[in-house]
Amino acid sequence: MALDQSLIEALRALLGERFSTATAVRDQHGRDESWHTPEPPDAVAFAESTEEVAAIVRLCAASGVPVIPFGTGTSLEGHVMARKGGVTIDLMRMNRVLEVRPQDMDVTVQAGVTRKQLNEWVRDTGLFFPVDPGADASLGGMAATRASGTSAVRYGTMRENVLNMTVVLADGQIIRTARRARKSAAGYDLTRLMVGSEGTLGVITEVTLRLHGIPEAVSAAVCAFPDLVAAVDTVIATIQAGVPVARIELLDSVMMGAVNAHAKLDYPVRPTLFFEFHGSASGVAEQAATVEALAGEMGGLGFQWATRPEDRTRLWQARHEALWAGLALRPGAKAWTTDVCVPISALADCIDQTRKDADALPFPSGIVGHVGDGNFHVLYMIDPADPAEVALVEAANDRLVARALEMDGTCTGEHGVGYGKMRFLDAEHGPAMAAMRAVKAALDPKGIMNPGKIVW
Amino acid sequence: MALDQSLIEALRALLGERFSTATAVRDQHGRDESWHTPEPPDAVAFAESTEEVAAIVRLCAASGVPVIPFGTGTSLEGHVMARKGGVTIDLMRMNRVLEVRPQDMDVTVQAGVTRKQLNEWVRDTGLFFPVDPGADASLGGMAATRASGTSAVRYGTMRENVLNMTVVLADGQIIRTARRARKSAAGYDLTRLMVGSEGTLGVITEVTLRLHGIPEAVSAAVCAFPDLVAAVDTVIATIQAGVPVARIELLDSVMMGAVNAHAKLDYPVRPTLFFEFHGSASGVAEQAATVEALAGEMGGLGFQWATRPEDRTRLWQARHEALWAGLALRPGAKAWTTDVCVPISALADCIDQTRKDADALPFPSGIVGHVGDGNFHVLYMIDPADPAEVALVEAANDRLVARALEMDGTCTGEHGVGYGKMRFLDAEHGPAMAAMRAVKAALDPKGIMNPGKIVW
Repeated sequence: MALDQSLIEALRALLGERFSTATAVRDQHGRDESWHTPEPPDAVAFAESTEEVAAIVRLCAASGVPVIPFGTGTSLEGHVMARKGGVTIDLMRMNRVLEVRPQDMDVTVQAGVTRKQLNEWVRDTGLFFPVDPGADASLGGMAATRASGTSAVRYGTMRENVLNMTVVLADGQIIRTARRARKSAAGYDLTRLMVGSEGTLGVITEVTLRLHGIPEAVSAAVCAFPDLVAAVDTVIATIQAGVPVARIELLDSVMMGAVNAHAKLDYPVRPTLFFEFHGSASGVAEQAATVEALAGEMGGLGFQWATRPEDRTRLWQARHEALWAGLALRPGAKAWTTDVCVPISALADCIDQTRKDADALPFPSGIVGHVGDGNFHVLYMIDPADPAEVALVEAANDRLVARALEMDGTCTGEHGVGYGKMRFLDAEHGPAMAAMRAVKAALDPKGIMNPGKIVW
Repeated sequence: MALDQSLIEALRALLGERFSTATAVRDQHGRDESWHTPEPPDAVAFAESTEEVAAIVRLCAASGVPVIPFGTGTSLEGHVMARKGGVTIDLMRMNRVLEVRPQDMDVTVQAGVTRKQLNEWVRDTGLFFPVDPGADASLGGMAATRASGTSAVRYGTMRENVLNMTVVLADGQIIRTARRARKSAAGYDLTRLMVGSEGTLGVITEVTLRLHGIPEAVSAAVCAFPDLVAAVDTVIATIQAGVPVARIELLDSVMMGAVNAHAKLDYPVRPTLFFEFHGSASGVAEQAATVEALAGEMGGLGFQWATRPEDRTRLWQARHEALWAGLALRPGAKAWTTDVCVPISALADCIDQTRKDADALPFPSGIVGHVGDGNFHVLYMIDPADPAEVALVEAANDRLVARALEMDGTCTGEHGVGYGKMRFLDAEHGPAMAAMRAVKAALDPKGIMNPGKIVW
């Protein structure tokens, strides 16, 4: 839909040069890092305050025009595509850290602050923000997509690390979802309702986050296993033993082979676990020793561990190279990526079936997992311009999701729904979708908040 | 409202002897452990399955009759009172542990299973369920009220420990709020929406919970402090240092004096912290040593710690005696109890002001805190039959809540809203209450789900 001239004039009056209908600006805001086809909005509004966001939403609401929040554009399922046109609200000028409270170990930031920016800012306090989805995403976007990543096994996802948010609702009302107390039993959990709502229930403009103490010591370890079952059993035993492991990442054999070839390494071409431990100096040594013993019982091959930063970096090099090594399996290809999450008892089987399925496809693929949570990613190296390859990979994705759901898992552990995974939600949630739709209709009766995402 | 005869007949046909309108049964279900006036329902239905709950809700919905879920009746803010009459659904016959999955460290229980029953059941697996609100409450009720307690600082509240639930909605539809994966980004967080909804959005019939490894070793410690600020600063320093403390409880000077008198002990009559540490044998020793050093820097008086069970019990005796010791301050009195939660930087000030306020009242009172979370309870020892005392305590409670809100805290950290704290929600949430009301209206358009609680 094209925007009404009166709305354009009103937005220009509000924002001046910070409102744009230029093609280049629109194009920039109509794509993310996924394989989904770009869909630019009709205009882009660069907001500098919560009040401005509220004014933009009110104007759009009056005209029934869609509103799409935009951060770093690093989403992976088409979250930012303007499926029904409308105005994208770019929040990246709202990039101030508003208040750091070391005693409370929390911080309030505007939505456009990125996680790396935040960690730079708070470093002197001895605190850090642990959620690490890979991309240097905005914290508003990370809250909106319920981001997690490698450290979730220890520190939780955005679900556990957001204390409250300032949100602009569909009618332009500004709310705060909760107080700053660590816990509360005072009414419905609007914070958690908004975390993961992907802009479909409101625009997040400020976020108060938990911080954690920078650990006194960090150790890293790596260990190959004869097979996936042995690797996953080691993960299960580690968690059951109460080892507060900070990260446990899995690379499958294909990825290890790719990493060896790409980075000229000579790791065993076997399923391999990468560990990181946080704690006191003696604590991280004890954690590594416990895991070494458990890995040994499961047939682990050549457990190595280290505490010095340069040695830790070397041990984790293979993990960090995974994406590039995967891409190098097929020069010129793009990585078509997806993720699922299953109960950990089903993880080895799910990865194993997925590996066999992927091996039957005519292009290479790699599996990387945040295995402490039962979450893994598949990267298919395809030519996105080839419709036959796209069709094959979409069918493989359908099978992957069906497999995860069969195991009582979810169609996405951390990438989110956007519109790429909408078609799986009925199968995943069944009659609970009606409740989600009722909530959406209640909070966004005109359907203007990032329409065509999550629910329809 | 009296029940329609046709509804009574339909419920009797469904449940036979398990449907009752007897006064004694109704009275038993019209009260909790709070100071609120009992309000019995018109009838009580003893359900034995999710499908029965759904059938009861459908019948009541057709007649517009309220439905009130009931577990152990240990709520503290009138959550179970039949404010508008209706049918109470007693879930305590749904007391089966449905499935324990040690590899996934989770368990699915019917809503009527209590936390102690669950812990007995899973003990042989080496796992336990940590959330401990004091009462041996039902797990459905604990989920419904977002219960927490002494171990929340380490293990989280019900918010963090519920993986999914089976819920009967207001139209009798049965939903599952999520899959069993540890994390998911697949749509709105219905699990967290239902946790803490106190029966106002649906009836919880089954709960899947995270379990945790029974720690290899446990140590306990106790330390008195010259004043509240020193005690709270020790708590802050402990958490900032990354000590994964399992419990940190505070008793104020009045409570310590009461405990000494009641249990013939001779603790310093000073604010006193009680610690519990979970981990490996060397880990709990290291944690205790770290906290001892921190407490020493803050002026802690006579830090003691122990690992043998009988010694730990002795160290924690004062904490366990607190309620009885408080009641003994005024023989014949009842404890009128309330709780708030504030950012921890404000905790010493909030407790201090509350102590001074309470000292001006003509009856004794005690303060006990889950201080790692900034949460504390005040127990006023009153004669509930004396309207003047009730008026004084209600006014003190109003001042307490106003003080907590002023400090960006919440009117209840763990007891919940029920109807006792409804009148504070507008002040706490402001315009966000409209969003809560919209969610309530969307999921319960007839207003039959535990009406007169949380929202109105």
